[in-house]
Amino acid sequence: MRDIAVFTGSAHPELAEEICAHLGVPLSPSRVSRFANDCLEVQLQGNCRERDVFLVQPLVAPVQEHLVELLLMCDAARGASAGRITVVMPHYSYARSDKKDAPRISIGGRLVADLLVSAGAGRVLTMTLHSPQVHGFFSVPVDHLHALRELAAHFRQYDLSRTTVVSPDLGNAKEAAAFARMIGAQVAAGAKQRFADDRVSISSVIGEVAGRDVIVLDDEIAKGSTVLELLQRLRELGPRSIRVACTHGLFAAGALKRLGEQQDVLEIVCTNTVPVPVGERTEKLRVLSIAPAFAEAVRRIHNGESVSALFDALPGH
Amino acid sequence: MRDIAVFTGSAHPELAEEICAHLGVPLSPSRVSRFANDCLEVQLQGNCRERDVFLVQPLVAPVQEHLVELLLMCDAARGASAGRITVVMPHYSYARSDKKDAPRISIGGRLVADLLVSAGAGRVLTMTLHSPQVHGFFSVPVDHLHALRELAAHFRQYDLSRTTVVSPDLGNAKEAAAFARMIGAQVAAGAKQRFADDRVSISSVIGEVAGRDVIVLDDEIAKGSTVLELLQRLRELGPRSIRVACTHGLFAAGALKRLGEQQDVLEIVCTNTVPVPVGERTEKLRVLSIAPAFAEAVRRIHNGESVSALFDALPGH
Amino acid sequence: MRDIAVFTGSAHPELAEEICAHLGVPLSPSRVSRFANDCLEVQLQGNCRERDVFLVQPLVAPVQEHLVELLLMCDAARGASAGRITVVMPHYSYARSDKKDAPRISIGGRLVADLLVSAGAGRVLTMTLHSPQVHGFFSVPVDHLHALRELAAHFRQYDLSRTTVVSPDLGNAKEAAAFARMIGAQVAAGAKQRFADDRVSISSVIGEVAGRDVIVLDDEIAKGSTVLELLQRLRELGPRSIRVACTHGLFAAGALKRLGEQQDVLEIVCTNTVPVPVGERTEKLRVLSIAPAFAEAVRRIHNGESVSALFDALPGH
Amino acid sequence: MRDIAVFTGSAHPELAEEICAHLGVPLSPSRVSRFANDCLEVQLQGNCRERDVFLVQPLVAPVQEHLVELLLMCDAARGASAGRITVVMPHYSYARSDKKDAPRISIGGRLVADLLVSAGAGRVLTMTLHSPQVHGFFSVPVDHLHALRELAAHFRQYDLSRTTVVSPDLGNAKEAAAFARMIGAQVAAGAKQRFADDRVSISSVIGEVAGRDVIVLDDEIAKGSTVLELLQRLRELGPRSIRVACTHGLFAAGALKRLGEQQDVLEIVCTNTVPVPVGERTEKLRVLSIAPAFAEAVRRIHNGESVSALFDALPGH
Amino acid sequence: MRDIAVFTGSAHPELAEEICAHLGVPLSPSRVSRFANDCLEVQLQGNCRERDVFLVQPLVAPVQEHLVELLLMCDAARGASAGRITVVMPHYSYARSDKKDAPRISIGGRLVADLLVSAGAGRVLTMTLHSPQVHGFFSVPVDHLHALRELAAHFRQYDLSRTTVVSPDLGNAKEAAAFARMIGAQVAAGAKQRFADDRVSISSVIGEVAGRDVIVLDDEIAKGSTVLELLQRLRELGPRSIRVACTHGLFAAGALKRLGEQQDVLEIVCTNTVPVPVGERTEKLRVLSIAPAFAEAVRRIHNGESVSALFDALPGH
Amino acid sequence: MRDIAVFTGSAHPELAEEICAHLGVPLSPSRVSRFANDCLEVQLQGNCRERDVFLVQPLVAPVQEHLVELLLMCDAARGASAGRITVVMPHYSYARSDKKDAPRISIGGRLVADLLVSAGAGRVLTMTLHSPQVHGFFSVPVDHLHALRELAAHFRQYDLSRTTVVSPDLGNAKEAAAFARMIGAQVAAGAKQRFADDRVSISSVIGEVAGRDVIVLDDEIAKGSTVLELLQRLRELGPRSIRVACTHGLFAAGALKRLGEQQDVLEIVCTNTVPVPVGERTEKLRVLSIAPAFAEAVRRIHNGESVSALFDALPGH
Repeated sequence: MRDIAVFTGSAHPELAEEICAHLGVPLSPSRVSRFANDCLEVQLQGNCRERDVFLVQPLVAPVQEHLVELLLMCDAARGASAGRITVVMPHYSYARSDKKDAPRISIGGRLVADLLVSAGAGRVLTMTLHSPQVHGFFSVPVDHLHALRELAAHFRQYDLSRTTVVSPDLGNAKEAAAFARMIGAQVAAGAKQRFADDRVSISSVIGEVAGRDVIVLDDEIAKGSTVLELLQRLRELGPRSIRVACTHGLFAAGALKRLGEQQDVLEIVCTNTVPVPVGERTEKLRVLSIAPAFAEAVRRIHNGESVSALFDALPGH
Repeated sequence: MRDIAVFTGSAHPELAEEICAHLGVPLSPSRVSRFANDCLEVQLQGNCRERDVFLVQPLVAPVQEHLVELLLMCDAARGASAGRITVVMPHYSYARSDKKDAPRISIGGRLVADLLVSAGAGRVLTMTLHSPQVHGFFSVPVDHLHALRELAAHFRQYDLSRTTVVSPDLGNAKEAAAFARMIGAQVAAGAKQRFADDRVSISSVIGEVAGRDVIVLDDEIAKGSTVLELLQRLRELGPRSIRVACTHGLFAAGALKRLGEQQDVLEIVCTNTVPVPVGERTEKLRVLSIAPAFAEAVRRIHNGESVSALFDALPGH
Repeated sequence: MRDIAVFTGSAHPELAEEICAHLGVPLSPSRVSRFANDCLEVQLQGNCRERDVFLVQPLVAPVQEHLVELLLMCDAARGASAGRITVVMPHYSYARSDKKDAPRISIGGRLVADLLVSAGAGRVLTMTLHSPQVHGFFSVPVDHLHALRELAAHFRQYDLSRTTVVSPDLGNAKEAAAFARMIGAQVAAGAKQRFADDRVSISSVIGEVAGRDVIVLDDEIAKGSTVLELLQRLRELGPRSIRVACTHGLFAAGALKRLGEQQDVLEIVCTNTVPVPVGERTEKLRVLSIAPAFAEAVRRIHNGESVSALFDALPGH
Repeated sequence: MRDIAVFTGSAHPELAEEICAHLGVPLSPSRVSRFANDCLEVQLQGNCRERDVFLVQPLVAPVQEHLVELLLMCDAARGASAGRITVVMPHYSYARSDKKDAPRISIGGRLVADLLVSAGAGRVLTMTLHSPQVHGFFSVPVDHLHALRELAAHFRQYDLSRTTVVSPDLGNAKEAAAFARMIGAQVAAGAKQRFADDRVSISSVIGEVAGRDVIVLDDEIAKGSTVLELLQRLRELGPRSIRVACTHGLFAAGALKRLGEQQDVLEIVCTNTVPVPVGERTEKLRVLSIAPAFAEAVRRIHNGESVSALFDALPGH
Repeated sequence: MRDIAVFTGSAHPELAEEICAHLGVPLSPSRVSRFANDCLEVQLQGNCRERDVFLVQPLVAPVQEHLVELLLMCDAARGASAGRITVVMPHYSYARSDKKDAPRISIGGRLVADLLVSAGAGRVLTMTLHSPQVHGFFSVPVDHLHALRELAAHFRQYDLSRTTVVSPDLGNAKEAAAFARMIGAQVAAGAKQRFADDRVSISSVIGEVAGRDVIVLDDEIAKGSTVLELLQRLRELGPRSIRVACTHGLFAAGALKRLGEQQDVLEIVCTNTVPVPVGERTEKLRVLSIAPAFAEAVRRIHNGESVSALFDALPGH
Repeated sequence: MRDIAVFTGSAHPELAEEICAHLGVPLSPSRVSRFANDCLEVQLQGNCRERDVFLVQPLVAPVQEHLVELLLMCDAARGASAGRITVVMPHYSYARSDKKDAPRISIGGRLVADLLVSAGAGRVLTMTLHSPQVHGFFSVPVDHLHALRELAAHFRQYDLSRTTVVSPDLGNAKEAAAFARMIGAQVAAGAKQRFADDRVSISSVIGEVAGRDVIVLDDEIAKGSTVLELLQRLRELGPRSIRVACTHGLFAAGALKRLGEQQDVLEIVCTNTVPVPVGERTEKLRVLSIAPAFAEAVRRIHNGESVSALFDALPGH
């Protein structure tokens, strides 16, 4: 396999730039044209031939634009004789469509996985899928990173001696537990029960919260309603302080503003898997970069070194 | 094969309704949800099981939204055990991306054909593809209609004894010639020459135009620049009257307004393969319905009757 | 599609017989030969040609024997020109291998789904998959039944006025909640937390248990350790009575005996998705038949009627 | 990727030899046997294992023999563990079957593309496809060369100060325009109109021809009728001299003799993409070798260097 | 499935006519065009849409022409929305290329099977494959007929009380044994030993031949050398009479003449799976029609009735 | 391609160890877990990423367990980004299911070939397939070794001047003839005739046996009944000595004991393609190692050197 060639779509060029800086390779330019009939055309503006091509594009809003753009990038790279095509998708938003919980609905998480392969993707590098089963939706190898090291490094600046990591959802508390162990903290979880009529209620929080420094940890925050509901429960239990952390900071529908307005939330921490609009940023927001981790994964994929060895902190990854 | 089930995406529900009215079958409702993370989910709200399912969706702006929606509809129909899935795509806009005229670009016309098949489409029903070779991009059967009958029926209301049909592009004048024969008119063509630097100039018009009633006929009008340029040439030749007709009236970037402002253009005729926004319609616009033709094609596909027999006026279709 | 033809492998012929009795069609005989070199050969002993073929085989121990047998049955049916091949797999045991929670491991749930399709399966009919995402592992349509109606019908013989349905795992409490609603009961759940070192501990039970008639409900019981651990927690809370119910009664490693020896467990209820060895049955065991449900689903699949309509009690099915 | 291995079928071994000479690699021998029942068997007589295998075979008459031979060569190379298989098809004759212009006909251009991939071809290297859309018929990467450099080098021996390049077909005049720019000439085109009944008439020639040195340029000359018709039109316009050039000199049905007999045609120029039978050659014929171009393309494909960079003179290639 | 539509290629239209006569359906016309560049185009001249299409074409000389024609017919039928495509290939000549007995050779029997499927074939109906394993080369259902009934009916006109059926090759004597049982005869076989250097010698004949009425039975006769060699051995053993029979009478390289010149050969019997040129027929030749058997198989395939039930005389078919 | 990584399943770890010793590479450990529900999970315990992975597993009893294990190993290697996956299957037992000799039976030899590819296998290395046509069942490259060199080396310790190699089956005597030539011996063969009712009788032995030192050579010995029957015939002909040799010594159903009890059988020779249980070994048994041959083949596959060059003694390999 010859040299690495990294291209970015229009979803998150800053992240692609940063990954390239860490890799020490230039970000190959690309061009996306929109025709009068609203169709897109992609031109990769750097030699792909026999290269180890990496296409960086998280599936963030506008998701459909970015998805089709990514599919066209795969097609262009394949047609240009790329040696191997790895889709670097730091956030795979369609992973949330992972089951058929109503008759005659699409399972977007599987469909999009198939579309990417159909367009030429030969492997996928992603981070913190909504459910680990989504890994099995892909018929090509997937490297599945997590951001716990970055989050841990951030929180180690604080006194963590009385800290409890709280997962909003007890069923998925594995990640919170792994994180708690990494920083020497306790773990707790909201006991979220999602009934048949899709009404969500968190009936209780299991674990020690009173007088503790709480870090609420979730995989992603979109509208933020789950976290806001959890905060109400937590307050009843008297925590000493509250911080909120997640991997994917989507912050849709004014979520960042609403969370920032919670007086007792000292800090909101996310990573840059998705771009946070500058205009929506609050003082409380800290955005951690996962670019070094992605750069290291790209390097290892290219060199044929173990990626799992890198990320062994968390079972399941 | 059991009953027909027709579903519409959000691109052109009026057309789907009209096709169903002509077929005498109800339009099955569908639901498109957009999640907080901007991903779509489709639910087909009518039994698909073993049905002969037709999904109506022209790929019009916003094209990427409508394309992904259509792919999700295919996936939902497949998962719901549809007996057969026919994509009814009255306008296949990605057909214009049909060649690799620059290094490392995508060929969207082929890619989208593959994506549709990957998502479950078993056949395609479409109208007036930009180039006839695009038919060969599909690995599933394609029924390829044209709108010449509808256009001819419209123009027969006029005295056609001194009419010349003018194709803006001589290379593709076959359709104009077929149309001229249908209405007993002469044919002429702009000799469009597209040089290497993509500057387009129409050097001349071949055929008799002076003193004639001209019908300019193109497959689609997007920005309208080609037609506007042709009009300038035509005027130099002294036609008696000018009308403009096309199958796909995309009318992007104010094209309808600009064309309507041409004093000597008496009429602009298109079909309803794509929706024309009510706000942009001018008095000069006539929109012909191709719903009866699509309804008849659907009926014949369902009954296993010849579709080509229907549309034998034009070689190449 | 011509007539139904139902064949059984050697995994659970009694169930196949019972489904056929409810369908009113004969169970077509089949023959499995084992050669001197331990390879299997399958002969379907009834005409498959253009038939709507259903192959009944839950993947129970010896799983590998039954899986290869099923793959050979698919191959034989395909080679014999079956019109359509539906794998009726009341228990899909490989569904538990649904994620990559260690480096370089197989994801059997996805692999076996692909193998079935590769061998000729055109659709799958199954019951209560371990996680709903496993549905997305299949590239062919899946009809996914549940056994809540059968379980509800059984429990309605009792006074249910003070009943609480308890899910051992809060994260998956949706099914228990749906079941509780069906029988007018309350719902509770064990808050199972599975830490990184795979040590499972149930820290608490959320919901009202004291003085209640408890029905513990799980999707499957294999070794039974999770249920036994839950019983310990429940006892601390003083329930009035305890019954245990599940869909798939695998009862491996003496689980049935151990559960039966729990004095306060009045009854153990499961269905016949998998065969319960006669020798291991205890007096407390009640095996409910899901054959009528499977027969009805087969009938609807064959007739192209809605299957989801049948099983609308539970979202997600 | 290990060493290059070039094999030739029986269609054009001279070209393969010449390409190898330019590459500095030996032409690996191959053997085609014909059995008593007229079936073919191919043996590649040189190690393919992990080699970068190139199979040279233009699809010239007898086309079916050469096509099946090529498919068998692909199969043999795949079975012999070739590292990569590139079909070098200097002339892809089936490209002319690129649309469905009558009901129930084959689209050979797409079918043969699929057959090659089915037989093991991993990429294609070809020259001057009849229409650029045929590129999109292949599901594997295609390198699409043109012969304009070779033609330009040939004509630069003449005084080109009064030269006009004439395309027989205005719709496809792009190539002629590019060629004209390369040699500093003007461009003109026949305005060929192909009516519905397949009667072809060239109504006029657009551009300056009187008193000019004309080079008629087409992609291929088979029966030569189009060129002969164009010559009649040109003569009416008084050119100073006429030369005829094309990439693919098929010269079927005595075309070479007929063209040679035209007194005012000074020269007929083609390339060696297809073999010209020695017996049919006339004094006026000049055959330019494209072997150096193919050798360079093979070298670049093998080394992972840009091929498009080589052939950037012409948009669309 | 709607009506049967039978099309013939140019290999053996007489057989197709005869099959249609027995079926009572018209033979749909088809058209094969050869272009100036020697490429073929097929048009099926009858409605295929949703029809149960049967394409009749044995792969006889010129094999490559007939193969490509058949592939184009499949493609045309698929593109024309055939409901199902069955290739009726009474003689599959490429079946003889069934193993890799030299390095780097093609396995034509498998390749052509894949090509047919790639071109759209959904099933195959054939007769007496050279080796039964070739059945496994197809990924689609194969119905594999034999001609023993027709041969037996023919020979029953003679006194068979002292008859011995002789297979030239003991390894493949199964068919001869089955045939002997059908007509109440004994069986014998040449002990053909094919050594490493491909020299074939028949060292002996096993079974009773002296004073017997011998019927030499082989699957096919191409050059006839094997049979001629066997005849020499038989003569040494003093048979009372000799007749020669086979299914596929290819009779290449003057084989029919050479066999006919053998004074003691009373009769040469074959079937019409392949056309026997009228000019080469000798008085000794009897051609039996397998059209009724093919017609019955087509009828049963169409109606979904058992085909194996028809041909149960011979295990292995 | 980076380094070799060899993994073994549980079928024959001793052979894998021995191959690795000859290769000079470590045998990478692997782990097979069996869950409570009898499903298997495989973890490859060594880096696969971009490695040239070889998975050693002959399909011996329990065949189904070993087959599914092998499929899971392929899946794990693919998911772990193996550069290339070669299945090393010294004995492919399912090759015996190579034809459809009864209606509606599976063709396991083809099915298992497809399953391996579906699970990720990219090539296969095997030894002495039951029939050479089985090679054609695989859609990926197969390297097909034989053990004649090893057998010849063993027998050269004896005086071979009066030796006859006897094949039990004359139809497959090619291998025996090749072996005879290697050791300068004569060849003979049992004329096995397998009639329609599957009764096997060996009517005679062709070739010189009286007073000769006989080596009976077969591809595999399972129950041994064919060999035992042949021994009876041989004894009638008065050989001087008898030895029995085969490649695959399956020795099922006490075959080794029964053969060992034959007084006149001096020696039973097989290879270690399959493990011979220590308990069943007799004094007469000699097990030759084919590990050096497999190691050399692996080395050549990895280095892209010719494998056929190695094994050129025997046509057909």
